[in-house]
Amino acid sequence: MSVATVRWSSGCLYIIDQTLLPTEFREIELKTAEEVWEAIKALRVRGAPAIGVCAAFGVLVGVRQQEAKSTSDVLLVVDETADYLATSRPTAVNLFWALDRMRNTAHNNANLDSSALIDRLTAEAVEICEEDTRRCRAIGKHGGELITDGDGVLTHCNAGSLATSSYGTALAVMYSAHESGKRFHVYADETRPLLQGARLTAWELMRAGVDVTLICDNTAAQVMREGRVQLVVVGADRIAANGDAANKIGTYSVALIAKAHNVPFYVAAPLSTFDFSIASGDEIPIELRGADEVTHGFGKQTAPEGVKVYSPAFDVTPSTLIAGIITERGILRPPFIESIAAVAGPQSATF
Amino acid sequence: MSVATVRWSSGCLYIIDQTLLPTEFREIELKTAEEVWEAIKALRVRGAPAIGVCAAFGVLVGVRQQEAKSTSDVLLVVDETADYLATSRPTAVNLFWALDRMRNTAHNNANLDSSALIDRLTAEAVEICEEDTRRCRAIGKHGGELITDGDGVLTHCNAGSLATSSYGTALAVMYSAHESGKRFHVYADETRPLLQGARLTAWELMRAGVDVTLICDNTAAQVMREGRVQLVVVGADRIAANGDAANKIGTYSVALIAKAHNVPFYVAAPLSTFDFSIASGDEIPIELRGADEVTHGFGKQTAPEGVKVYSPAFDVTPSTLIAGIITERGILRPPFIESIAAVAGPQSATF
Repeated sequence: MSVATVRWSSGCLYIIDQTLLPTEFREIELKTAEEVWEAIKALRVRGAPAIGVCAAFGVLVGVRQQEAKSTSDVLLVVDETADYLATSRPTAVNLFWALDRMRNTAHNNANLDSSALIDRLTAEAVEICEEDTRRCRAIGKHGGELITDGDGVLTHCNAGSLATSSYGTALAVMYSAHESGKRFHVYADETRPLLQGARLTAWELMRAGVDVTLICDNTAAQVMREGRVQLVVVGADRIAANGDAANKIGTYSVALIAKAHNVPFYVAAPLSTFDFSIASGDEIPIELRGADEVTHGFGKQTAPEGVKVYSPAFDVTPSTLIAGIITERGILRPPFIESIAAVAGPQSATF
Repeated sequence: MSVATVRWSSGCLYIIDQTLLPTEFREIELKTAEEVWEAIKALRVRGAPAIGVCAAFGVLVGVRQQEAKSTSDVLLVVDETADYLATSRPTAVNLFWALDRMRNTAHNNANLDSSALIDRLTAEAVEICEEDTRRCRAIGKHGGELITDGDGVLTHCNAGSLATSSYGTALAVMYSAHESGKRFHVYADETRPLLQGARLTAWELMRAGVDVTLICDNTAAQVMREGRVQLVVVGADRIAANGDAANKIGTYSVALIAKAHNVPFYVAAPLSTFDFSIASGDEIPIELRGADEVTHGFGKQTAPEGVKVYSPAFDVTPSTLIAGIITERGILRPPFIESIAAVAGPQSATF
């Protein structure tokens, strides 16, 4: 069932090019730091955890590309590549977190010769990837218990296998419930402008045998009004210390709609998604995307030439709308300032 | 500025084929009742008032097509054509209302010879069209006063010139404010699946010189959260006696989101949109659209083969979320059961 979204094999980095799904399933090799940067920017690889894993391996791609010979060369290239890859997308905290881990690993092992240092960096990137998979499994285990036979579960965007090393975060909850034999139904928001829900979530849930219905984003309220949804589960790209959660544009809208229908709204995310340095979601920078994704989304012009477009990639759901945050350590409940503080600290970085 | 959405000229019916906008502006002639039916079904002509006007002329197209010679032949063809056209779309009450007017006009003039009867029917259809234009102007006048300099106004779908004989309902409010020199900004929801907001609303507002920004449907909540919207104005396809309003799918979502941000939500619609025979929106039948509009909407397959899709064409906004209903007789305010009853009755059919 699980999809190897990002794969490191014999010193080479491979990703599934998600811009080609659902009609074409193709793995591509990223041979240069520039290709890694472009793959993140163009959403060939997307989803906060997957971006983090890809960027960690991307540092290794940079080191190989520059043919760094000495330890000081390796340190320099690690720093440069990490700085460069950090500019690919501004919102996902896992990107910076993974790059910092690679940077710190390099500088903490500056006593090693270059070959041993590269081995150590490779082990760190592999560990970032494997930790991610373990976290996803744990999130699935904790969150799966929220789903009851007969439930309708709504999700937005793709926080699935394709957004992580494998198994997903929001979709891990569904995979886990499915594996334990529960029968339930998923409504997947298509998620304009780039249709990650239609192209990716519907695709991977169908592949896994989970019953799924695709809806337009603007249909979620009607589906809830008809009593078809008992639970919303979405992912997150960054969560502030107070529980405010940045996720794909439209998530905030779903949270408001869920509140109006008394449907509990859950965020599923590993602790690496938390940014303990910011007090609230107001401090999360929101990436603006280009007009073309809205006006020429799918091979055809669907808006007037030259029309103004406002297309933020993310929005922030205030913690007051969130019933719980499903992490690898269990489900955090309000008041989030306390429950999040309890899992904060250096120990939260490893699992 | 105004667009002749439906035009009757020398005994022939012309419409703008709205499925070709915004990249192609083409008028087509509808020569048979079947072509009229198909044009309504395929949304070449859409918007409740425009559908009503088109259907009224469509009855004349049927009469000419059948070469009805005697008065009794004309009566038969009017009844058959009206019955047939009534099956094209189930939600817009103006469709049935316009067809009933044509049917009643025929039977009330059964004493005329066939030629005089056809003249009378033509005059009735022309009057339905001209009444619609007068109503739109009056709606614009009443609603335009709601807009203040500097306001942001959000709309969903297209309740503009292209949804009526001309000038529009929700957009009439904006055209009127624009004509009186007010400076304001419009946010147009693109309106999945068929993108009437992107293709039609953005197109006609730009053409009229109204400042407009296109957003994805799921971005409306974020735009409101940023304080950019002071007013929502949408159209309606059918309004129940209690003020519940059916409109394009996603309208209910916008109404909930507006409520959460204390943004007043207005419906603009002529009194012909009211269905005084139904007590609440629960009795409004909701048309379901095919999966292809969601999965193959943009000239490209954007969802997995065979995925289930739920695509209602409309939703119902409960009157509790509506600040006012802008009609040709003024703005109706809550409690709507009383304000609507005050304008109900046979006199409301003419203006």
